[in-house]
Amino acid sequence: MNGAKDIRSYGYKVGSIPCGKANLITDVPGVKVGHCTVEENGHKTGVTAVIPCDGNVFVKKPVASVFTLNGYGKTAGTIQIEELGVIETPICLTNTLNVGKVSDALVEYTIQKCAGDHIKVRSINPVVGETNDSLINPIQERAVEVHHVIQALESASEAFEQGCVGAGRGTVCCGLKGGIGSSSRVLDFAGKTYTLGALVQSNFGRMEDLMICGQPVGNRIAQELHPKNSKDEGSIMIIIGTDIPLSARQLKRVLKRAAVGLVRTGSYMGHGSGDVFIGFTNENYLPAAGKEKLLSISCFPEDRLDLVFRMAAESVEEAICNSLIYAHQETGVDGKIYHCLSEFLPERV
Amino acid sequence: MNGAKDIRSYGYKVGSIPCGKANLITDVPGVKVGHCTVEENGHKTGVTAVIPCDGNVFVKKPVASVFTLNGYGKTAGTIQIEELGVIETPICLTNTLNVGKVSDALVEYTIQKCAGDHIKVRSINPVVGETNDSLINPIQERAVEVHHVIQALESASEAFEQGCVGAGRGTVCCGLKGGIGSSSRVLDFAGKTYTLGALVQSNFGRMEDLMICGQPVGNRIAQELHPKNSKDEGSIMIIIGTDIPLSARQLKRVLKRAAVGLVRTGSYMGHGSGDVFIGFTNENYLPAAGKEKLLSISCFPEDRLDLVFRMAAESVEEAICNSLIYAHQETGVDGKIYHCLSEFLPERV
Amino acid sequence: MNGAKDIRSYGYKVGSIPCGKANLITDVPGVKVGHCTVEENGHKTGVTAVIPCDGNVFVKKPVASVFTLNGYGKTAGTIQIEELGVIETPICLTNTLNVGKVSDALVEYTIQKCAGDHIKVRSINPVVGETNDSLINPIQERAVEVHHVIQALESASEAFEQGCVGAGRGTVCCGLKGGIGSSSRVLDFAGKTYTLGALVQSNFGRMEDLMICGQPVGNRIAQELHPKNSKDEGSIMIIIGTDIPLSARQLKRVLKRAAVGLVRTGSYMGHGSGDVFIGFTNENYLPAAGKEKLLSISCFPEDRLDLVFRMAAESVEEAICNSLIYAHQETGVDGKIYHCLSEFLPERV
Amino acid sequence: MNGAKDIRSYGYKVGSIPCGKANLITDVPGVKVGHCTVEENGHKTGVTAVIPCDGNVFVKKPVASVFTLNGYGKTAGTIQIEELGVIETPICLTNTLNVGKVSDALVEYTIQKCAGDHIKVRSINPVVGETNDSLINPIQERAVEVHHVIQALESASEAFEQGCVGAGRGTVCCGLKGGIGSSSRVLDFAGKTYTLGALVQSNFGRMEDLMICGQPVGNRIAQELHPKNSKDEGSIMIIIGTDIPLSARQLKRVLKRAAVGLVRTGSYMGHGSGDVFIGFTNENYLPAAGKEKLLSISCFPEDRLDLVFRMAAESVEEAICNSLIYAHQETGVDGKIYHCLSEFLPERV
Repeated sequence: MNGAKDIRSYGYKVGSIPCGKANLITDVPGVKVGHCTVEENGHKTGVTAVIPCDGNVFVKKPVASVFTLNGYGKTAGTIQIEELGVIETPICLTNTLNVGKVSDALVEYTIQKCAGDHIKVRSINPVVGETNDSLINPIQERAVEVHHVIQALESASEAFEQGCVGAGRGTVCCGLKGGIGSSSRVLDFAGKTYTLGALVQSNFGRMEDLMICGQPVGNRIAQELHPKNSKDEGSIMIIIGTDIPLSARQLKRVLKRAAVGLVRTGSYMGHGSGDVFIGFTNENYLPAAGKEKLLSISCFPEDRLDLVFRMAAESVEEAICNSLIYAHQETGVDGKIYHCLSEFLPERV
Repeated sequence: MNGAKDIRSYGYKVGSIPCGKANLITDVPGVKVGHCTVEENGHKTGVTAVIPCDGNVFVKKPVASVFTLNGYGKTAGTIQIEELGVIETPICLTNTLNVGKVSDALVEYTIQKCAGDHIKVRSINPVVGETNDSLINPIQERAVEVHHVIQALESASEAFEQGCVGAGRGTVCCGLKGGIGSSSRVLDFAGKTYTLGALVQSNFGRMEDLMICGQPVGNRIAQELHPKNSKDEGSIMIIIGTDIPLSARQLKRVLKRAAVGLVRTGSYMGHGSGDVFIGFTNENYLPAAGKEKLLSISCFPEDRLDLVFRMAAESVEEAICNSLIYAHQETGVDGKIYHCLSEFLPERV
Repeated sequence: MNGAKDIRSYGYKVGSIPCGKANLITDVPGVKVGHCTVEENGHKTGVTAVIPCDGNVFVKKPVASVFTLNGYGKTAGTIQIEELGVIETPICLTNTLNVGKVSDALVEYTIQKCAGDHIKVRSINPVVGETNDSLINPIQERAVEVHHVIQALESASEAFEQGCVGAGRGTVCCGLKGGIGSSSRVLDFAGKTYTLGALVQSNFGRMEDLMICGQPVGNRIAQELHPKNSKDEGSIMIIIGTDIPLSARQLKRVLKRAAVGLVRTGSYMGHGSGDVFIGFTNENYLPAAGKEKLLSISCFPEDRLDLVFRMAAESVEEAICNSLIYAHQETGVDGKIYHCLSEFLPERV
Repeated sequence: MNGAKDIRSYGYKVGSIPCGKANLITDVPGVKVGHCTVEENGHKTGVTAVIPCDGNVFVKKPVASVFTLNGYGKTAGTIQIEELGVIETPICLTNTLNVGKVSDALVEYTIQKCAGDHIKVRSINPVVGETNDSLINPIQERAVEVHHVIQALESASEAFEQGCVGAGRGTVCCGLKGGIGSSSRVLDFAGKTYTLGALVQSNFGRMEDLMICGQPVGNRIAQELHPKNSKDEGSIMIIIGTDIPLSARQLKRVLKRAAVGLVRTGSYMGHGSGDVFIGFTNENYLPAAGKEKLLSISCFPEDRLDLVFRMAAESVEEAICNSLIYAHQETGVDGKIYHCLSEFLPERV
């Protein structure tokens, strides 16, 4: 979309499992992503929407799970995902102080969507993740409005931008400009090809710790930039989507392995980092509507999950790299320059 | 406040531990409760605010915990309470679809409150509980606005109404009109008197199951009213406040015993019931601001907790009774009459 | 089996859902229960084994879950049940200090069982629950040996005794003699009849709190016996078995409702009470052996679970009543007499 | 002790925080470690004991926590640690199928220890971790007996061996010989020096993934050895001990960061890897005995925990490296040679 290049274009290849056709979470059939970047009046924030499946999410209820690695965060919707093992709205990402407003917008969106399907809803569990973009964005003003959320949702498609867009507009990662990144992996099993993809909103870590494909890139950048008071702060939101048949319990196991990808980029899971991972599979659904018959969930054999775990780890590691390499330089609210990875990363031959 | 009488006035005494001076959660020194009931344009909903301590909650951060008995709910703020063991805003209760708006209002309130104290906040964890009042209130319209929340917070005091007020305006409990109820218990330990109080937003259960002080009152009412399609639906929010010195871990143990009080009123913890319990002690604080010294938490001896557990169980059971006995008859959105307990409960001599 | 009568014979009927043909957990097809009571040399202890399904449990791996209401207990096997959602051994109950020895015996049993099936096992997760029978049994001596466990397992059948047998030989419940109790409930759904049963090892509570079918029976007994230092101590183990198709997540939801049955008998979930609930369904299996194909789990519709929840609550409540009514009077290690419920419970007409 | 050298002697320095005087978990004052290696009759297994503090652990009850990263394991004692936030026995490590026997031995040890202090115990929560050493040790024979456990406990001291000793006698890590390893870090805060140390029983991972200080050492070894069917299997037990004042909640946060150290050595948290982390601080105690006064827990300021998190991550990473570099070559039960890291690791200048 934009002229920027992904991490592979620089010669860095994460892991060993093949990626999907666009190396995006939207390689998973049915998944769509949309952004609304909010830049009026000095705001540098936004919303990113991940739509898990075709049709009305509220009616279909894809199987989902959540894993909270560090709960210093404000993600909405987690306790119901934990209890019922499904999501019933798209997942929206935004900044920390906008969670309430975006939750309300998702409620409005779901009411309208269901009204269009002649369904009157009384109870909705909006799923909204966040990281804190206050280094670059005047966060107290809470600039994201209902129409921004609707725009992100309605513009969702298979192709989408990475870097400083949507919920990644104002994030900072390892002292550099962070943002939205994505990646995917594919798997052949029992005669069928399955895809697992990750999308991240990167806003974590300390410059000195950043690693790209095992290279201590951050340390080299720090030696050049001499950042003052380099702190481990911020957070990361990780969304995993897949069409691999998994139960909610299995999805939680997969989500934990997102931590592997995260640590491999240099995270020490800092105190202030609200690291929350949400996953769904659009191969299994648990619709609520009162059917008088049994439902069925298809499960991957437990002792074959290792490959799925690596798909999660690799796609998260690469999604973080992509969030950084697609980002561009930005000036913070206090005038500080946040450089971007592409200024520093040498191409590998 | 209103002319209604509490459950003790009818001759029903829950448990054996003495209650505090007003038999309210506000018997805990420093705790205040405020309501804003929203009744414009056919709405019958509102917000109830529980302020855990004097001063700026964001700065002080009282020790807190959460226990989710049934996660079919949308309570905001749980993962950070779990991680950090504190709350940093008052706790607001409202209806299910207003959680986003009330969260945002709590963010606004906290920004203003901290600005008054010359503190610029970037990250706030609003704590908002909910039950679903859609049988009585047109819930999709999401009538609660920022000014309602501020009003509930600013009107908070030691004296407060129970029954069909604030977040209890539109709730239904065991097929009768539910609402807000409260109760407290006191304890002498090591030469000091401590108080534990409960506040509930009752919206759960099936009429036939209701028990008052062990009496199958609901069954008798059902034989009189012949309710059609009596279902176990709705939820309950339970807030426990205390000045007993507890750690977050101990508080979670205390919160679990709220389930005892709940079950003793007849709950079977129905599928649709989002039963979430939040607790705090204003005897212990974990302020975040970067002090270069150790903090200290005072703990109750673990093997003396049984009495505290019973205080929680008894005060929750009585708070639920009070929520019902203070409520008045109401008409639902579909014209159905929701009777109130005081129409049926014979006084005990 | 013995001349004792169940609680229904006294005219007390718990709840409203029909029970299975023998009102035992073994009404669930495939479930068997066996005891070995150890009475040599002044010991009054034992082991009770619940076999979840026909065939080799290690190979089949029925779907299972665990819920820890109060973790002041030593139940073995919980973290693997939580992670993998299955059990791979029968469930054995015993006393607190024998858990290690009974775990080892279950390992030995599983090695032998698998050797008979020409399978060499390297890793086994024995599931062993416990309560503390030290008021009646000299617990430090740890009298249960491998052969006792094997005997309990090999004698398992559909018919089994209740009361002071097996793991219930030395327990005390509400100041009376406790023991093993069981009950079941049946459900018709989509043209098929399903069964859910409970088995408890009752060892909890305070005499004054005991309720039978809502009657404050314990209070009346206490007025007669004047127990000194009546304390809330001990624990309860609850096993729920069913052939209702459930996922591990759904089973956990069902297990939580065991707390309803427990509280309805008068428990306040005391500090010292390790209340651990383990459940399984033998309708779903997740065998580990490396099949290169997908597995399928059959699920009950989520919004029809209320009836299953009540089946759990009612069968647990009645199982506790049966554990008490089948027990006989016993003398404690310090000479104290532990009376039994049948001495006091008037028959209802 | 043996002639082997630690990872620093090869020129590999993990992280940037200074280590304690011996770079062992026993740098934490009061902590002692003992082994008993069992080699009779072809066994190659054993037990390793970590004693958390001076005096009677059962009486003192140091504050503790557990974090289960992957619950495919049989660690005993976790639910009570979770509930009460303390340990009451030393922590013993052994192999998977010996957990029952070692638990029983810890019970016996505690009964004797308390008898010596004139205390009669009725309830003991033995804490026993495990990994599976069946590639090298005939695990079904369960060779560890009570006297081995007592020997490990009674020989515990500040100095202890690393590598193929005690519970590390038969483990395999990344296709090489694993074992016991340890490391420590120190911190100055508010005028005092604190220590945090790790001890691991390494038995996880795939050769190709092994990293030492960010170097893809395992990949190079795999190119030399061409391992067949290189699988990610096995587990890791991690013990963190410290004298930093922490609550059980804070300790759990620290334990999670052990995962950072683990991943930095190349772990992908494989399906079969039971990754369980247990931590304690001997600066805080919660004795059970019925004192009629409040207890106090000293806490580190939450927003200063980042350094403690890094201490955990670094000491775990280095402890794993030490477990490998101290190990020596060994032959498996099927005759396969398990090489050791010291055969391959070039010294860094």
